[in-house]
Amino acid sequence: MSTIIEPKILKGFRDFLPATEIERKRVIRLLEDAFEGYGFVPIDTPVLEYTEVLLGKGSGETDKQMYRFFDNGKRDIALRFDLTIPFARFMAKNRSDLYLPFKRYHINKVWRGENTQKGRYREFTQCDFDIVGTDCASADFEILMMMRRSLKALEVPGCTIRLNHRGIFNRFLELLSLREQSEEVLRTVDKIAKIGREEVLRLLTEISDAPAALQILDFIQKEETFSATLSKMEKLAGGEDEDTLRLKEIYSYIQELNLEDAFELDPSITRGLDYYTGIVFETFLNDLPSIGSVCSGGRYNNLAGLYTKESLPGVGSSIGLDRLMAGLEELGRSAQKNSHSQLLILNMDKNLVGYYHKLAEDFREAGFRCEVYHESKKFVNQIKFAEAKGIPLALICGSNEKEAGTVNLKNLKTRESFEGLTPEEALKKAGEIID
Amino acid sequence: MSTIIEPKILKGFRDFLPATEIERKRVIRLLEDAFEGYGFVPIDTPVLEYTEVLLGKGSGETDKQMYRFFDNGKRDIALRFDLTIPFARFMAKNRSDLYLPFKRYHINKVWRGENTQKGRYREFTQCDFDIVGTDCASADFEILMMMRRSLKALEVPGCTIRLNHRGIFNRFLELLSLREQSEEVLRTVDKIAKIGREEVLRLLTEISDAPAALQILDFIQKEETFSATLSKMEKLAGGEDEDTLRLKEIYSYIQELNLEDAFELDPSITRGLDYYTGIVFETFLNDLPSIGSVCSGGRYNNLAGLYTKESLPGVGSSIGLDRLMAGLEELGRSAQKNSHSQLLILNMDKNLVGYYHKLAEDFREAGFRCEVYHESKKFVNQIKFAEAKGIPLALICGSNEKEAGTVNLKNLKTRESFEGLTPEEALKKAGEIID
Repeated sequence: MSTIIEPKILKGFRDFLPATEIERKRVIRLLEDAFEGYGFVPIDTPVLEYTEVLLGKGSGETDKQMYRFFDNGKRDIALRFDLTIPFARFMAKNRSDLYLPFKRYHINKVWRGENTQKGRYREFTQCDFDIVGTDCASADFEILMMMRRSLKALEVPGCTIRLNHRGIFNRFLELLSLREQSEEVLRTVDKIAKIGREEVLRLLTEISDAPAALQILDFIQKEETFSATLSKMEKLAGGEDEDTLRLKEIYSYIQELNLEDAFELDPSITRGLDYYTGIVFETFLNDLPSIGSVCSGGRYNNLAGLYTKESLPGVGSSIGLDRLMAGLEELGRSAQKNSHSQLLILNMDKNLVGYYHKLAEDFREAGFRCEVYHESKKFVNQIKFAEAKGIPLALICGSNEKEAGTVNLKNLKTRESFEGLTPEEALKKAGEIID
Repeated sequence: MSTIIEPKILKGFRDFLPATEIERKRVIRLLEDAFEGYGFVPIDTPVLEYTEVLLGKGSGETDKQMYRFFDNGKRDIALRFDLTIPFARFMAKNRSDLYLPFKRYHINKVWRGENTQKGRYREFTQCDFDIVGTDCASADFEILMMMRRSLKALEVPGCTIRLNHRGIFNRFLELLSLREQSEEVLRTVDKIAKIGREEVLRLLTEISDAPAALQILDFIQKEETFSATLSKMEKLAGGEDEDTLRLKEIYSYIQELNLEDAFELDPSITRGLDYYTGIVFETFLNDLPSIGSVCSGGRYNNLAGLYTKESLPGVGSSIGLDRLMAGLEELGRSAQKNSHSQLLILNMDKNLVGYYHKLAEDFREAGFRCEVYHESKKFVNQIKFAEAKGIPLALICGSNEKEAGTVNLKNLKTRESFEGLTPEEALKKAGEIID
């Protein structure tokens, strides 16, 4: 037992120290409360699933990134790499126990063996919310409203939700005889924020030809207003159809709620995945566009087709929690707390420890978060402990005070002291200071 | 894409449907709030770690139960099978960023490829809380108080925390010349609740001899009161020592806080693990002792010896969340909610959908959790949806009401209706009913 094992962790994985974990929990609680405000319910699924189930149709890239292995029973299993596929499997498996439309949220970790780089981890948290079992503008709008409400709850400063409709883009590409290349075109256009207009033009010219590439670049250029952009898209796509009608309906709700400033119609938003069939949307932070979209999603016409014959249309969105939290920290909008403790009862006399615990319980009963310093160490050590945890108040009571039935309260931030208080007075004073 | 993949999950794993997940989240929030009331801070660690780190000294049984494999970089890795070893590794790795004593809680899933049986899963949740970096009665007592507070917060009915001290037991065994067999004896005594007194006697006789076995059985018999039991133990173990002094100090705190009813000194409590060196404790539900201890732990003198030369004494406890929740359900003490929604705005007219969303936002601003029914389906279908989610209130507004500036509110539980209310009156009325 003399050899020491190096306490190392895997590349791309993280320990969450208290300040980070407290902030993660704060953010997650705010999101949960926001989602529940719209009637969304939580679910969870196993971290490990059959590889066959997770791979579905399969894709070379996903396959390579999966943590996949054989368990002791020789089953081919893997860690989930997103929350979408487990949700599709969940809906198919539990369909008879669920009602429709089913509105669920799921916040949990996923694993991908990607190459690590700044801000990219192999273990990270996803936060998905979807409405399944209905294809209507009201559900599309509710997801958009939830995105807005969630970002507001987190006090995310300056962000605009940009939306588009895949159907209009596809009709437009059909007119250009590029229907078969549509996936490739959408994927290329999707990169415009990253690689720039010139490079997109070059790539589009390779896919089709120079005139078509220029027309596409014109199509994805947004106009001054939602209506003006929609009119232009409608015209270029060959006139009104259910896709433009859907956007008009959504826009009428946006107007009715006076939220024109919160949403923008942006024909350059495509979302890379061929999975989406209706509206698609992204959210960029105005002051930090470089970190990419912090909340994105869209409508799909068949969630669980791999696992059931029942067609389940839906609309959903996903918050990249790690990315968003990194963004909030960069913008100085994340709370940095080392603990929730409000009061430290100093250990002035080891014969009074029982009394300190009694006082602590009284404070807890009154709703305070407080703790007793366990050992009768030097005063300065105890104060250092309070500072390390960010505890704003200290309660001081030695044998003299105990005998007199009083305690002293010290505001560790202002260094102000309040002496000779009864415990009840100390409770009241502490409440005033914390408040 | 015509072949359907069976949406199956692995044996020993579970989907968490909304009612279960809502209850899990409720319980976890209550525990988090209780822990934070005592100044405990949350941490999290990676789900995957180097096998070498997780195995530590290694034990055949743990090894066999681990989900272990090689990642794409040929690293020998595994899923954590408890939260104790990752915590030890965490303390060693992050020691310089942490203050002592460090009080952390960690609630998260762990994985063991055990044989499945009723109530045993391969993926389950642990909830650990520890105080590391101090060896004193005050810390021992705080853990006991937190256990009590946590179980109270969950409204766990009738349970007693039973404690003991390993040191006294070991001194007693030394007097019997059984020091070398102490682990075996402790493990045998630990099974008494499961296998009964007779069988324990038989096994102890095999380990030592009949007279010693009987003396052990006498030692583990508790007396009428804490003090009487302690006196007897002290006498049988050879007199006063630091172990009995520690128990006396803890008992003096228990008395000072008038909590004699909450704690019991029970010399038959040993906890199987050789890991513990000081007090040990368990908690059984009075009305459901068969499910075993729902909250147990003890003091250890060296948490992270495998990973660092610094000695870190500590005391900690663990709540078996799955077991406790199963117990609460069996006792009818678990909340069964299918959603948190309080109000469903019925879709009476598809031209009013924007207005419904506006009303919903007004209710949300006032603190309600509410939702809009997205499609204008039959009234009965919408009411069924509300019932499936357990939504107590419906707001009904057709074009006539809209024109008159009124809405109707329906209490779906009592079938009572409130008609012709202004939206503000409806808000007020809804608040009265929900309250």
